[in-house]
Amino acid sequence: MSNAKSLEQLEQKQDFIRRHIGPSPAQVSDMLSALEVSSVQELIDQTVPASIRLEQPLTVGESRTEVETLSYLKSVASKNKVFKSYIGQGYHPTHVPHVILRNVLENPGWYTAYTPYQPEIAQGRLESLLNFQTMTLDLTGLDLASASLLDESTAAAEAMGLAKRVSKAKKANAFFIADDVHTQTIDVVSTRAEQFGFEIIVGKAADAVNHDIFGALFQYPSTSGEVVDVTDLIAGVQSKKAIACVAADIMSLLLLKAPGKLGADVVLGSAQRFGVPMGYGGPHAAFFATRDAYKRSLPGRIIGVSKDRLGNDALRMAMQTREQHIRRDKANSNICTAQVLLANMAAFYAVYHGPQGLKTIAQRIHRFADILAAGLKTKGVALKHSTWFDTLTVVSDSKDDVIARAIAQGVNFATNHDGEYSISVSETTTREDVAQLFDIVLGEGHGLSVDSIAADIEANGSDSIPASLVRDDEVLTHPNFNSYHSETDMLRYIKRLENKDLALNHSMISLGSCTMKLNATAEMIPITWPEFANLHPFCPLDQAEGYQIMINELHDWLVNITGYDAVSLQPNSGAQGEYAGLIAIRKYHESRGDAHRNVCLIPSSAHGTNPASAQMASMKIVVVNCDKNGNVDMADLKAKAEEVSENLSCIMITYPSTHGVYEETIREICDIIHEHGGQVYMDGANMNAQVGVTSPGFIGSDVSHLNLHKTFCIPHGGGGPGVGPIGVKSHLAPFMPNHSVINVPGTNINNGAVSAAPYGSAAILPISWAYITMMGSEGLKQATEMAIVNANYLTHELSQHFPILYRGRNNRVAHECIVDLRPLKEASGITEMDVAKRLQDYGFHSPTMSFPVAGTLMIEPTESESKGEIDRFIEAMVSIKGEIDKVISGEWSIENNPLVFAPHTQADVLGNEWDRAYDRFYAAFPVPSVAKDKFWPTVTRIDDVYGDRNLVCSCPAVETYRD
Amino acid sequence: MSNAKSLEQLEQKQDFIRRHIGPSPAQVSDMLSALEVSSVQELIDQTVPASIRLEQPLTVGESRTEVETLSYLKSVASKNKVFKSYIGQGYHPTHVPHVILRNVLENPGWYTAYTPYQPEIAQGRLESLLNFQTMTLDLTGLDLASASLLDESTAAAEAMGLAKRVSKAKKANAFFIADDVHTQTIDVVSTRAEQFGFEIIVGKAADAVNHDIFGALFQYPSTSGEVVDVTDLIAGVQSKKAIACVAADIMSLLLLKAPGKLGADVVLGSAQRFGVPMGYGGPHAAFFATRDAYKRSLPGRIIGVSKDRLGNDALRMAMQTREQHIRRDKANSNICTAQVLLANMAAFYAVYHGPQGLKTIAQRIHRFADILAAGLKTKGVALKHSTWFDTLTVVSDSKDDVIARAIAQGVNFATNHDGEYSISVSETTTREDVAQLFDIVLGEGHGLSVDSIAADIEANGSDSIPASLVRDDEVLTHPNFNSYHSETDMLRYIKRLENKDLALNHSMISLGSCTMKLNATAEMIPITWPEFANLHPFCPLDQAEGYQIMINELHDWLVNITGYDAVSLQPNSGAQGEYAGLIAIRKYHESRGDAHRNVCLIPSSAHGTNPASAQMASMKIVVVNCDKNGNVDMADLKAKAEEVSENLSCIMITYPSTHGVYEETIREICDIIHEHGGQVYMDGANMNAQVGVTSPGFIGSDVSHLNLHKTFCIPHGGGGPGVGPIGVKSHLAPFMPNHSVINVPGTNINNGAVSAAPYGSAAILPISWAYITMMGSEGLKQATEMAIVNANYLTHELSQHFPILYRGRNNRVAHECIVDLRPLKEASGITEMDVAKRLQDYGFHSPTMSFPVAGTLMIEPTESESKGEIDRFIEAMVSIKGEIDKVISGEWSIENNPLVFAPHTQADVLGNEWDRAYDRFYAAFPVPSVAKDKFWPTVTRIDDVYGDRNLVCSCPAVETYRD
Repeated sequence: MSNAKSLEQLEQKQDFIRRHIGPSPAQVSDMLSALEVSSVQELIDQTVPASIRLEQPLTVGESRTEVETLSYLKSVASKNKVFKSYIGQGYHPTHVPHVILRNVLENPGWYTAYTPYQPEIAQGRLESLLNFQTMTLDLTGLDLASASLLDESTAAAEAMGLAKRVSKAKKANAFFIADDVHTQTIDVVSTRAEQFGFEIIVGKAADAVNHDIFGALFQYPSTSGEVVDVTDLIAGVQSKKAIACVAADIMSLLLLKAPGKLGADVVLGSAQRFGVPMGYGGPHAAFFATRDAYKRSLPGRIIGVSKDRLGNDALRMAMQTREQHIRRDKANSNICTAQVLLANMAAFYAVYHGPQGLKTIAQRIHRFADILAAGLKTKGVALKHSTWFDTLTVVSDSKDDVIARAIAQGVNFATNHDGEYSISVSETTTREDVAQLFDIVLGEGHGLSVDSIAADIEANGSDSIPASLVRDDEVLTHPNFNSYHSETDMLRYIKRLENKDLALNHSMISLGSCTMKLNATAEMIPITWPEFANLHPFCPLDQAEGYQIMINELHDWLVNITGYDAVSLQPNSGAQGEYAGLIAIRKYHESRGDAHRNVCLIPSSAHGTNPASAQMASMKIVVVNCDKNGNVDMADLKAKAEEVSENLSCIMITYPSTHGVYEETIREICDIIHEHGGQVYMDGANMNAQVGVTSPGFIGSDVSHLNLHKTFCIPHGGGGPGVGPIGVKSHLAPFMPNHSVINVPGTNINNGAVSAAPYGSAAILPISWAYITMMGSEGLKQATEMAIVNANYLTHELSQHFPILYRGRNNRVAHECIVDLRPLKEASGITEMDVAKRLQDYGFHSPTMSFPVAGTLMIEPTESESKGEIDRFIEAMVSIKGEIDKVISGEWSIENNPLVFAPHTQADVLGNEWDRAYDRFYAAFPVPSVAKDKFWPTVTRIDDVYGDRNLVCSCPAVETYRD
Repeated sequence: MSNAKSLEQLEQKQDFIRRHIGPSPAQVSDMLSALEVSSVQELIDQTVPASIRLEQPLTVGESRTEVETLSYLKSVASKNKVFKSYIGQGYHPTHVPHVILRNVLENPGWYTAYTPYQPEIAQGRLESLLNFQTMTLDLTGLDLASASLLDESTAAAEAMGLAKRVSKAKKANAFFIADDVHTQTIDVVSTRAEQFGFEIIVGKAADAVNHDIFGALFQYPSTSGEVVDVTDLIAGVQSKKAIACVAADIMSLLLLKAPGKLGADVVLGSAQRFGVPMGYGGPHAAFFATRDAYKRSLPGRIIGVSKDRLGNDALRMAMQTREQHIRRDKANSNICTAQVLLANMAAFYAVYHGPQGLKTIAQRIHRFADILAAGLKTKGVALKHSTWFDTLTVVSDSKDDVIARAIAQGVNFATNHDGEYSISVSETTTREDVAQLFDIVLGEGHGLSVDSIAADIEANGSDSIPASLVRDDEVLTHPNFNSYHSETDMLRYIKRLENKDLALNHSMISLGSCTMKLNATAEMIPITWPEFANLHPFCPLDQAEGYQIMINELHDWLVNITGYDAVSLQPNSGAQGEYAGLIAIRKYHESRGDAHRNVCLIPSSAHGTNPASAQMASMKIVVVNCDKNGNVDMADLKAKAEEVSENLSCIMITYPSTHGVYEETIREICDIIHEHGGQVYMDGANMNAQVGVTSPGFIGSDVSHLNLHKTFCIPHGGGGPGVGPIGVKSHLAPFMPNHSVINVPGTNINNGAVSAAPYGSAAILPISWAYITMMGSEGLKQATEMAIVNANYLTHELSQHFPILYRGRNNRVAHECIVDLRPLKEASGITEMDVAKRLQDYGFHSPTMSFPVAGTLMIEPTESESKGEIDRFIEAMVSIKGEIDKVISGEWSIENNPLVFAPHTQADVLGNEWDRAYDRFYAAFPVPSVAKDKFWPTVTRIDDVYGDRNLVCSCPAVETYRD
């Protein structure tokens, strides 16, 4: 028998590359033919400026198979020591209900969905997010909640921002933080305050009233566990016209009076312990609630109830005019990504347990704390406080001995104050655990019996929660929290919501600039391994060796890929990364005595997040014009740089540009900025068009953030989590974020934190780690090249029907293209919104609409889409063009055509009346391929204005559920 | 604060019970009111005869939480030692593609689907099964394939049965098995032959032609690895008018000529190594193919292509008239369950890899075998054969040393022949593994280099596959095997098929007698743990300690629950269990000199499997009549028992009866049989109405099989796997199955096997283990009681609209009820089939149709359905009754009404023409609740006759995919 193939070929070590990349070799060949080039290389040569092409291949290693990768990563993960955590401080062990674990967190139907910008095909996760908001409102006792923020500490920083905006104490410039707020929160808020130029005062809670402040933050219960009635503290703050903010433990709120009922203006916290693993720090959803009066200042997304065209209730993101991409340098916040997947998990946790179940869990936690306290007090152990929910702080001379015993038994306590340690019990704590805690604290032979202490408490009650703070109102009374307590019902509810949403497991979601590529299963598998999922972010470093190895490898690879010298993995969103990068620039200038450098140049084509981030770093924004080809107007750039030269801090620029082309002048731009003493911030949004082909560092940039959830395969999760590490040149490295609880090597130990956890959303870093491992240097480069091939093929085909707005050299685009719908709109009256909605009828999520240019669609197919899928999308676009032509020709009127009535629901096309100019079948099945796998929008077009005028941000009353 | 709840209440150790049981306490209360009883106990007292009520509670322990259960089971599983397996013998390590693992095996959308008896809502898995058949046909080179059998050995036994039926050597009574067929296959076929009264001749393959036989079985490649051209062997057998059967290794068929092309009449084997974990023996899908001429004798299910009402291609089970439930005592086989979930996994594995990918894997396996062989031969190691695909048999004096070295290094070889051992390499084998194999066989310091041997082979080729057997035809050319090789495309293909199928994650599937209850996620999680998934069934017992612990615990609990003395877990389907139970009865009689006892009494209401099984045990069947109430006619029973007394072997009876009632005379029935020297076989189909309330052993039965996939929560998998252990009284225990490779304790070592693996489908036993653990004694009893409550509530509500066919004492039913549609049919012309199909439009899978009585529906809601879901089903049935009434009243004609046009597809209701007597919207949304979560059938009603007349059992030609 002949052996045509070598063993190496048979081993297929590069198999993952072809699994990740959509087009088959034959399809690539067909696309190259259409593009009239003979090889991928030829197309790349035509597209990417020679001056920025990397001379050396990446050095992230050779492609490894899925099996090799997971096998190695498992060995790394097993170096983590999964201790029982009683550390608390905002992170608690929890039981993820298995039905949620498998059917939400591990289910591509949930984790590959995009942000619900197309609400008609996103009613499932919108309902779940509304559950999250309703839960937040019920538990906090406030009026208006957002659909999640990044973490508790950044939520606190957002609260400070809100306080500043809405406080009537207009002259005050200080924000008070009680000294018993979580350490990392004080850290993150302080970092933010420094950038805004606010003063931070940390002191005893009761002292807040003595300062001239615009707001104050209290922790409820305190970080050391005390349950204090904050009513008077709040009233004191409010007497100064300042805003009273309370960071609350979500589980405690089942038993404690709602801070909103005690008068708080803002209540925030982490929803982590509602069924989301600690994951060494993240990702988790923070909740945030405030008064209705402050709704225009609420950071982050709000889901609201509106009506669709047929008058049905329909959900969508409310009040989007508040959002950073609209308000740019007037933005309230640069918050962009939410934590949708995790917010959904927390909401489902509440749906699954219901109010009674949650209360039982909270009572159990509290009971174990009572038992522990009673036992310890019997033995003369000194407790710092006389009240608690779940956390006891012990004042002790023998702390070291106790901690040593704990470690020896695989147990962690919180140890961050001298002469004290804290023990936080959790949902996972058992009788046996409490007995072990007695052994650890008291040593063997203490003679305590958990059962008999428990019996005492059952008989005599406990006063560890002050009577005035015992919660007595009903919460979570909505049917959604009272209907799905059997697993069968819960499974069907999850599935019903999933089925309403279009995700990547159905069709391409080709959002220019924010696109979605394959989130491979093998990449997702490690994140639910207990070795990664169940570590507390503040556990001793020697217990996190596996994490450190994985993080260090990922760090080194990102350094290689970006051409920078150092990377910080702390920022837990792209916007957070921008912010961290700008802080580094600012601190760098300050370190050189250039504190006055505060002007940030931003091309007019920039993402809205750029000016919003610059605003948060208190920079002055100067806009640089673009020329008619969409490129930076070099003359204007030179003039502006010259003009602000003395005070130039930096430029923020995206590459390839947000117009989807490789600007030829990018090196020159970097040089101009540097000549004027500025720094180059290269927005990493389009890094996926650089990997392996060029790099920001090579081009001449100083700092970038990376969107791991885009370029490095972290799934979009329906609108989060994101991860936004920054890469920097060596001169900026000392100015990257550090952390006040866990020191992050490689940067100045005094630097503040930008996220609650030292490594941000560490738990999902294995996804990017695995992607890079499996692709290897060669595969990563191929991915970039194939993204360019796919984008140019798509452009070529569409250009026969639509004008393409911008192109680069040789008439090529980079990784995306902008289809200009304005001429058609002018001729027909059909808007880009009509086109976007009509695409839903064809089974597609609309590309990015009206960014960066109003009246356009920006399309980015990515390397993961096969030619078959791209052709299907082209077919839809061409068919829609034909529909518009019929409007233009008068065959259909502008009032009666399938575009303005799009999207079509089942009820719509099956109605008894049908007076449309097109038939029912055509409405739903405009091209035959749709019939293979029809996806139905569940509501018709949503009336945004109605919803904003009639803002409802919690689950609609039961009546509306009745038919 | 008061402590109303005790710690024990707060701990919620019984939480799982309420997760498994559907109705909430409030719903239970409502249902009891409707039934006019004051407590569950009162209803049970009314329903279950006092004489059979258990006096003692079960002793399977207290309910444990999901977390406790999985934590303990993990510790048990970790006692299994996962060695590298080179044992072969029909079981090979494989890589489950992760996208298939997560989205098929771990996805309730796939694993909770039912057998596709309602094909209009099952086109997804039907397409996948058609892929399985197409793959089988392509690889075997034959004309007609089935949609999977239980395992390779039982498939071989089925081949023998087919051979006997179709062979023209009518006088021959012997079946020849080559001595190089897998040991377990010889065992299982011999067991079957003994029952049928066939002679088994085991001998050298070439000797087959010298015997007077009706069929012969060869292994290709042989169990010791030799690749022999079977052309002449086949011709020899056929020259005797006997049927030539070949058991083939599926992976080898990528490289070896198809046995069908070499003349074989039947080709069978295991599809395990196509991406299904070894799982300590199962479950896996066996493939089976034969000539078109034998189609009426093909065992198991066949998926065929037919047309729907609108003329579209539509899939469904073909030629069901062959099936056991129709042919009863004339059945070809008692095969009932298939291995759908595993067949789907194997088919998806082929879809994912495609012909080139599969061939590459096969070539790699073979290359490593070549490298290993070349190295060993260089060092003078004696190989038994000069040809091989993946298995080398070494003839060795130092076997013991080699095996000791292997074990020390965590490696298993096959050791079952003196002075020989075999090494089978697999898909998972790597270069490093081959180097390790050299170390093991040769000891250290052998100096061999895998790389240089590989280079030699690349240069010089290999003749280990005879030139005449090198495969040169194209396989798997259908687009389904050539379109989904990127993970994105594969994920969408899996999802697209999933979305066509109605499964338990959508709505209740209340099939009387074969119902489906919750398959809890926590029960499913352990089965994909590597410690359970990756053990070879023939590994040394000390490596399977975890399995043994789990199996022994499950064994003991099943003994307790059934009231028997011993249980065998070997049978891998209910039908297989029946067969094993009847063998035990037969052997018991033989052991007492009563070999003549061969009459099996079967009530007329019995499952069709009963007579089919009795037929397979060569029993003579005498039918006992039922009275008008559906109960066994006691007079007739007494008369028949008297009549056959001398030769009475047993009775096969289901309890509660297949009519859904607790017959009051069951103890008397047992007594009558015993008085005549017979044994009582109590069919365990309805065991879920006994658990904790009564038991077969307590009632007086001698043997039962249990359907773990029903009563004990193993999911239906879309039509398999099943598990059918048997419980027996002590006098029958010695006659339960054993196994020729691995001795099963507690039974006669000489007993034959009924399944290929000693513990059958061991890998899914953790599901039932976990269910029993989490429910505990109390929860299991509650489940039974709630099944009775739900069934009686359903009966009560439906009885106001339909006649209920049978009831027991106090007008109660047991766990199911039979709705009699015959009067309505007579009045309206609307058939039970119309009702079943119309239920699809309401989003429900039809209950069991026309069993046990033609013209009826048998409905079993189970304890897992909440009242809300049951009410929704009732609403649908009542609405359908209203529709029938409109036909009766003449408002709708019999030709034009929503029942006869049911089910309605999207294309049907959106067609341009609409001349129906009802409107479009009503067709699809007959009641408002349907709109919440509409499930669409993907084809209209299927024409079974057309399909059977035009049998097509492989994927339709490409043309039909074009629109």
